Amino acid sequence: MATDARDAPAGDLSVRRSAWRVAEGGERVELVREEVASEHPLTLVVNDVELATLVCSPSHLDELALGFLTAEGILRPGEPVDRFFVDPDRGRVVVEAPGRDMEVERASFGKRYVGSCCGKSRTGFYLANDARTARPVTSELELEPEACSTLMEALGAASPVFGRTGGVHNAGLAADGELEVVRTDIGRHNTLDKLYGWALRREADLGRRVVAFSGRISSEIVLKVAKMGCPILVSKSAPTELALSMAEDLGVTAVGFAREDRLNVYTHPRRVLGEGREEGTRP
Amino acid sequence: MATDARDAPAGDLSVRRSAWRVAEGGERVELVREEVASEHPLTLVVNDVELATLVCSPSHLDELALGFLTAEGILRPGEPVDRFFVDPDRGRVVVEAPGRDMEVERASFGKRYVGSCCGKSRTGFYLANDARTARPVTSELELEPEACSTLMEALGAASPVFGRTGGVHNAGLAADGELEVVRTDIGRHNTLDKLYGWALRREADLGRRVVAFSGRISSEIVLKVAKMGCPILVSKSAPTELALSMAEDLGVTAVGFAREDRLNVYTHPRRVLGEGREEGTRP
Repeated sequence: MATDARDAPAGDLSVRRSAWRVAEGGERVELVREEVASEHPLTLVVNDVELATLVCSPSHLDELALGFLTAEGILRPGEPVDRFFVDPDRGRVVVEAPGRDMEVERASFGKRYVGSCCGKSRTGFYLANDARTARPVTSELELEPEACSTLMEALGAASPVFGRTGGVHNAGLAADGELEVVRTDIGRHNTLDKLYGWALRREADLGRRVVAFSGRISSEIVLKVAKMGCPILVSKSAPTELALSMAEDLGVTAVGFAREDRLNVYTHPRRVLGEGREEGTRP
Repeated sequence: MATDARDAPAGDLSVRRSAWRVAEGGERVELVREEVASEHPLTLVVNDVELATLVCSPSHLDELALGFLTAEGILRPGEPVDRFFVDPDRGRVVVEAPGRDMEVERASFGKRYVGSCCGKSRTGFYLANDARTARPVTSELELEPEACSTLMEALGAASPVFGRTGGVHNAGLAADGELEVVRTDIGRHNTLDKLYGWALRREADLGRRVVAFSGRISSEIVLKVAKMGCPILVSKSAPTELALSMAEDLGVTAVGFAREDRLNVYTHPRRVLGEGREEGTRP
């Protein structure tokens, strides 16, 4: 397992806090110290405009901000900025990027974009910022079913914080079947933004990497994975309908319920199951 | 169990979809029909301004829109509006409410509000719209520990969709220890907005009601519960640190990990544990 495959020390991701533990149906009550997931606000300021406040686990804020702003199309991959300053104590990231009309950017936040994506969407629904940054993934990367299960196991093992707090999600990037980096956050989306930021800093080829994810596969998660350009998303949890339609459209192989000995492949199965399984994908 | 204590027919909340089920470590692959949670976009248009697009389970859209807009302070409880039109097919809710400057409302969306709330916040963090609508809950409602566990059990039983899709959350309102209404959604927040909309339509006294919730207790969830004015929040899942600080400040009794025979009380324990347990709440 590579250096980055464990997330920040638990101290950054959780705190101890008092609680009354009630057991035996109310018979026994004791005051205990419980480990609780940390949750901090992080305000993103670009060219003096307050763009958004994310609520997150306070680790890898630089990656989080970079990944989020790039996924939203505010920053472009590889393009230098004049300033990128992270102030963890004040919960702020200040970015100066020339040539952005931030009032226009701000106005398009959350705006609906109606139209078909990739010419074959049944859903016809993407947000303005998504339409700008999400492109179909064409990588022909493959991953055996057993490797999916192994990845999910390694992901769980890499985050002791979940076991102790029950309050966080994990996501990891894997290359050649091996977990390279794991990020943990109270927000599902944040875990992916942190991974994206990690990859952008290193100019990593995301077309050769698999996303392993602890959370449910919703449409926003699939969009994020497609924006990153990762061809395969493996989760131990359930998908939603819109997420699968988008995965279909955006060329993402969505694998759900990936457990020790089983998994479901929902879209673009060739990458996991090999040739001859492309038929019958549509419900 | 009252009429509303089961959510919409499963048909509205899930669809059947093909998947390749891989078992025995890749030895067995079969094409199956899986039940997957539905996920639809819902765009809220107030006074001709597109305010937000929520992604949600397509049930109780009227309640969802009403609850969300009221929680955000765009609509005020009990105040009549000129128009409230729900168009499920186009995924739109169109509201006309006189006397709102929607450009101002839109600009304050997601804006950070720094300042202490209730004079004793350690966090100093609320969003602008939250500062406007969240007030400390003063109700002296009580609920025995055993009743907390019973509620969580009833909540799970009321939503067969979770068992079949694994992709949704549930929230319910209980009065006198009995579940009155349950709402299901792919979005944790949406379940609470739907409950709030339900209560607003009926002018239900939320100070006399408990929220039972399947998801994690994050700061946004506590804010929503405080905005609703509910004194007790019971969840089967974990809380976050900021959520507990806010619950402390906002007078909400937060109960987590509520299972068959045990639970944790984190804040304002008197409502669940009785007198004499107010000391030592702070970590």
